[in-house]
Amino acid sequence: MSRDINNIIAQMTVEEKAGLCSGLDFWHLKGVERLGIPSIMVTDGPHGLRKQKMGADHLGLFDSVPATCFPSAAGLASSWDTDLIGQVGVALGEECQAEDVAVLLGPGANIKRSPLCGRNFEYFSEDPYLSSEMAASHIAGVQSQGIGTSLKHFAVNNQEHRRMSIDAIVDERTLREIYLSSFEGAVKKAQPWTVMCSYNQVNGAFASENVKLLTDILKDEWGHEGFVVSDWGAVNERDAALAAGLELEMPASNGLGEKKVLDALKSGRLTIEALDRAVARLLRIIFMAVDQKKENATYDQDAHHALARKVAGECMVLLKNDGQVLPIAKGSRIAVIGAFAEAPRYQGGGSSHIVPTQLDNPVEELRKLGGADSITYAKGFAIETDASDDALTAAAVEAARNAEFAVIYAGLPDRIESEAYDRSHLSLPANQNELIAAVAAVQPNTIVVLMNGSAVVMPWIGQVKAVLEGYLGGQATGGAIADLLYGDANPSGKLAETFPLKLSDNPSFLNFPGEGDRVEYREGIFVGYRYYDKKELATLFPFGHGLSYTTFEYSNLTVSAPSIQDTDTVEVQATVTNTGSRAGKEIVQLYVQDVESTVIRPLKELKGFAKVELAPGESKTVTFVLDKRSFAYYNVDLKDWHVETGLFKVLVGKSSTEIILEGEVQVESTVRIRSTYTLNSTLGDLLRDPDSAAVIGPILQQFQQSSGFSSLGEDDSHADMMLAMMQYMPLRSLLAFGGGALTDEMLRGMLDQINRAEQLA
Amino acid sequence: MSRDINNIIAQMTVEEKAGLCSGLDFWHLKGVERLGIPSIMVTDGPHGLRKQKMGADHLGLFDSVPATCFPSAAGLASSWDTDLIGQVGVALGEECQAEDVAVLLGPGANIKRSPLCGRNFEYFSEDPYLSSEMAASHIAGVQSQGIGTSLKHFAVNNQEHRRMSIDAIVDERTLREIYLSSFEGAVKKAQPWTVMCSYNQVNGAFASENVKLLTDILKDEWGHEGFVVSDWGAVNERDAALAAGLELEMPASNGLGEKKVLDALKSGRLTIEALDRAVARLLRIIFMAVDQKKENATYDQDAHHALARKVAGECMVLLKNDGQVLPIAKGSRIAVIGAFAEAPRYQGGGSSHIVPTQLDNPVEELRKLGGADSITYAKGFAIETDASDDALTAAAVEAARNAEFAVIYAGLPDRIESEAYDRSHLSLPANQNELIAAVAAVQPNTIVVLMNGSAVVMPWIGQVKAVLEGYLGGQATGGAIADLLYGDANPSGKLAETFPLKLSDNPSFLNFPGEGDRVEYREGIFVGYRYYDKKELATLFPFGHGLSYTTFEYSNLTVSAPSIQDTDTVEVQATVTNTGSRAGKEIVQLYVQDVESTVIRPLKELKGFAKVELAPGESKTVTFVLDKRSFAYYNVDLKDWHVETGLFKVLVGKSSTEIILEGEVQVESTVRIRSTYTLNSTLGDLLRDPDSAAVIGPILQQFQQSSGFSSLGEDDSHADMMLAMMQYMPLRSLLAFGGGALTDEMLRGMLDQINRAEQLA
Repeated sequence: MSRDINNIIAQMTVEEKAGLCSGLDFWHLKGVERLGIPSIMVTDGPHGLRKQKMGADHLGLFDSVPATCFPSAAGLASSWDTDLIGQVGVALGEECQAEDVAVLLGPGANIKRSPLCGRNFEYFSEDPYLSSEMAASHIAGVQSQGIGTSLKHFAVNNQEHRRMSIDAIVDERTLREIYLSSFEGAVKKAQPWTVMCSYNQVNGAFASENVKLLTDILKDEWGHEGFVVSDWGAVNERDAALAAGLELEMPASNGLGEKKVLDALKSGRLTIEALDRAVARLLRIIFMAVDQKKENATYDQDAHHALARKVAGECMVLLKNDGQVLPIAKGSRIAVIGAFAEAPRYQGGGSSHIVPTQLDNPVEELRKLGGADSITYAKGFAIETDASDDALTAAAVEAARNAEFAVIYAGLPDRIESEAYDRSHLSLPANQNELIAAVAAVQPNTIVVLMNGSAVVMPWIGQVKAVLEGYLGGQATGGAIADLLYGDANPSGKLAETFPLKLSDNPSFLNFPGEGDRVEYREGIFVGYRYYDKKELATLFPFGHGLSYTTFEYSNLTVSAPSIQDTDTVEVQATVTNTGSRAGKEIVQLYVQDVESTVIRPLKELKGFAKVELAPGESKTVTFVLDKRSFAYYNVDLKDWHVETGLFKVLVGKSSTEIILEGEVQVESTVRIRSTYTLNSTLGDLLRDPDSAAVIGPILQQFQQSSGFSSLGEDDSHADMMLAMMQYMPLRSLLAFGGGALTDEMLRGMLDQINRAEQLA
Repeated sequence: MSRDINNIIAQMTVEEKAGLCSGLDFWHLKGVERLGIPSIMVTDGPHGLRKQKMGADHLGLFDSVPATCFPSAAGLASSWDTDLIGQVGVALGEECQAEDVAVLLGPGANIKRSPLCGRNFEYFSEDPYLSSEMAASHIAGVQSQGIGTSLKHFAVNNQEHRRMSIDAIVDERTLREIYLSSFEGAVKKAQPWTVMCSYNQVNGAFASENVKLLTDILKDEWGHEGFVVSDWGAVNERDAALAAGLELEMPASNGLGEKKVLDALKSGRLTIEALDRAVARLLRIIFMAVDQKKENATYDQDAHHALARKVAGECMVLLKNDGQVLPIAKGSRIAVIGAFAEAPRYQGGGSSHIVPTQLDNPVEELRKLGGADSITYAKGFAIETDASDDALTAAAVEAARNAEFAVIYAGLPDRIESEAYDRSHLSLPANQNELIAAVAAVQPNTIVVLMNGSAVVMPWIGQVKAVLEGYLGGQATGGAIADLLYGDANPSGKLAETFPLKLSDNPSFLNFPGEGDRVEYREGIFVGYRYYDKKELATLFPFGHGLSYTTFEYSNLTVSAPSIQDTDTVEVQATVTNTGSRAGKEIVQLYVQDVESTVIRPLKELKGFAKVELAPGESKTVTFVLDKRSFAYYNVDLKDWHVETGLFKVLVGKSSTEIILEGEVQVESTVRIRSTYTLNSTLGDLLRDPDSAAVIGPILQQFQQSSGFSSLGEDDSHADMMLAMMQYMPLRSLLAFGGGALTDEMLRGMLDQINRAEQLA
């Protein structure tokens, strides 16, 4: 239905306009009944719907209507499957329609700067490209159902510690290449109805009133068409926030927000045009919701549970599988150990915490598939404590000893990992680590299944045969694990984050979580594998790693052109073959390496991926299209993405450290960067540029004759030094070392001549 | 002789004054004959005198009068012996008196940020305390002879790459704690007659015209009484430099400098008072030189050579000595291998390169001590190439096979390590590494002697029994090595820098040498062992490491008081016992650790050291005095050094990674830091401060009752999260989440009340 929004705005009073920019209550926007503007509802998410029951406490964290709990983002991203995530989005959209919710608050596209961030389970990856692709698919899925999303938390919100006051200090290039890139692709590809600003400050300005982020970049550069909503309570000064591009303050501010907006209008700090623009953006989305509302919508809870199980299985990552101990033949005697096998951790704490429609019991799911008689269960440890319990340990060890396999369900309890606080270490609780070591000591076929939202260290990794990373797998995690352990499904997830050997290896370690209200992102662009790669640091498991029950071979890398301009695209193809005896899926990863660069760059960056399903013996060819952005870095002087002319390697592999195929392409820049030379430009730089060399060359010859540099060729042992010395000398040195042959005026005249030529070139 | 400098200045014309601020030629200051102001001479150094012969090329790099070549600074610092370095200074001063040189241009106190810096051999350490102590001793020694020094290169000149144009971006705390600290102690303790500014820019301003560095810090804060001289050609704009506190431009600027100063005076950009102050500083030093000139001074070249040999022996570091393969019994059959055994590398290239009075031949020195018949020599490799020579290798291997010991003299050629360019890797030339491996394969008693100015990697470290790091040991390095190998002297040096396992482990690796003319010191205070410690990174050899032919035990650590105020000092004592059978010297190191801090700090920092000589069985007690600075960090808000009240560990050990004794002291701050709270102050911070808690507490109780936080105690699984969430909430959140009970005005009133109380407290 098409509406004349301008006409509606024209009929609104200024008080109604100002009012519309703050929430009605905790979960509703305001409406204007007389103009037919309804009050729409938003709710937390994003891996399930958290619609608060009426009458519950108004922070709304403790009770909500049942909804399907899908794996949280850390798990979803490990699927590397955009279609699958789209399906999850569709299901979430259906549930929102059924519950009369207009906007689901998610997904979160913040980068995993540190594995300690308490909210990492809600975020996709340490890599902005992967994160952005996942977020875009999630958004597209939800929005295909006429339900809005809220891409969050924009931006540079990478820790829970002091999250409402911390100022994230991050340089422009890092901001663009890492932290904003993760949002950029999702905004451009999927146009989320809303974007949620984060609590923190970015380079000195609250995200909620950051004109650069909310207006210059999000709206003007990226073309976001929806509105920006504050994270709940993120608004500092309501008028400043509105001026910066934050259209909706949530939750209700008890009239304070409206008052500040009206005061600012009166005093001229805010224009009515700015307010009208905000209202127009709000109305556009409100009416989109209204127009796409499906009356009496319902959804099939069982079908969604089945989807949740399938998705969870695709997300889990087989980290280790020595001697192909997995899959386990059905009927084998298994000692299932660990309290999480009966009370799984399947979602994180905080705003994303939902009430599931049903919940798998992992042990029961194993019994269903493998036969009840073959499974024993021992609790092994208590979730709520770090202390070992001798009786529990002894029983678990005894059970393991008497079985053919021990499967330990370990993980992070809620008390260690949640929204609102960060972890302080990467360890599992001590009792779990002790239990795993004790079990592995008696049972050679020990398998660890992990339930956690972010990387952990594994002191027992050398003692166990297999590790299945289950992440927070949602309400069907128990069934999905059973499918994988018994081989009813074949693991196909790969890590979307690095698992380091120790916390101090992490690139943010020295500067996380900062000092007071200031955290400096000194590692810059070297986040995640970009750091481990360049620093040649060994990891526990690298980014992109994940095993399968079958094997894949890569062959026939082709690059469609040996050389392109940066305005062209190039196609890269590779063939993947399932060389094993089971059907399986492989995630093929493409990284780009700038062979030589004048700026500091990572060794390689992810620029493409594809998940392919292959029957035994089957081959498929995957195609990647690379464009300017695939080769570019963000040039802070140009204020644009830029490709330096040169050779690029195209690396195709199974993980960030297991590159199988290598190709190359020459990329020619179509952008000429003009230099402006000064008296402090070095002779080396002036001589490298043909235009300036033509002017400066003859003068340098004269200089060499009148100075000590004339003896350059005479003494070989000093030649390198003299050459280097001269190379690095500024033009002005010719005055001091030139024996008086040149004057200041002559040099300045020469410079003018060179710079004029530069600008014309 | 006391002179009335003000009276002389009063007689000078403005042209004479301006003239005095630039050099006469390459090595002389101007004089004013009519006023009895002589022209004094300065020359390069600082580990030997490089007085250019008259008539040589004016850059003066290729020829100079003979002088004693002592070990360069990298070696000197490894002695950790302030007395010894003072003796070297005295000898240098004597040579200057004999050669009619007034000021020796050194020492260099720049921090070894990266092992790649081409000039590291001229610098002392990666640790500012050690560097500063070494520089102070050097200066005191030279100046005790009536000769001036020039502490260089001030400041933040930590690479040769683009050294004349690069802008070093370094945060204030790092500047103070690391890069300036290295100069600060030397200036305050030893008052160098001159300080030489560096070529580079520091945070956007050339060091030569950096008012903050040259005036605010050097002159005003540290009380430097001498003058600042430019590194040769470091002046950008002469008038700006003079205004910033650079008194002397070198070398002569062909009248340009004077002209610019006179122009600036005319235009009012420079005051005559500023010029007079500069001239006064220049005259004070010129007359100090004149007054302390010793006519017809001479020095004993043989005595200085003997001193150089003793010093070199104290500087060398025994890195490894498996099975006590060293010392070698005299008369043992030794295959001496490596071209450096006949043509030692004993000094670095560039301005410090001197012509020695004599030069030991290392093989000959071994023959003298061990007996000519017992020594064979094989060249093994050519210095001038990286390529192995099969014939040389074969002969060396054969010689090694037939001997009881193989001693390989390896090292970095001049072409790899010099002033004017940085290294690009940490490797020895490939032919040397290959030779060492080949020799070690046939001779179990293989010993490597290294001649190099900075850390190298050692791929063969597991294959050789011993490594003696000789650094650039000066003209008597050959004799000193012989003394150590045969046990006539006992190694007593320890590393003043970390030897990393690989280049990428270095803290500056990701940001060295920067992009274009900008290098960011992103590692901040985490330079050298401060980084390896905190990052838990293994090293090849840690800072402070060095072995002896005897053994030492540490005992009886005492701390004079359990608790002090930060205005007090505290004494730490420890007993060291020689438990071996040879006399030897041990370098005892004291590190301080701040147990808990609100700012990011290293795990420990060197705050004391002592070198003690002990006969077998002898014990001595060493005493360290710690003061405020020993516990402080630089607080950028206070603009001062600050100690946070708390417990500090006092760690005494043999190296940075081998701590033997541990004590502790509580330090109470006498400085109260007053907070100013705002609406964005967190509730946690407000509640931690008793003054603000008294005001805010009652209001929070009310808030809890009217909000979801009232359910805090009811649901344990969420309690941690809710507590953390509230802790991090800003005061202004009470408006949004407080249900309207509070108004903006009430909160602001409360804040005023708190802040007033703070200021009175």
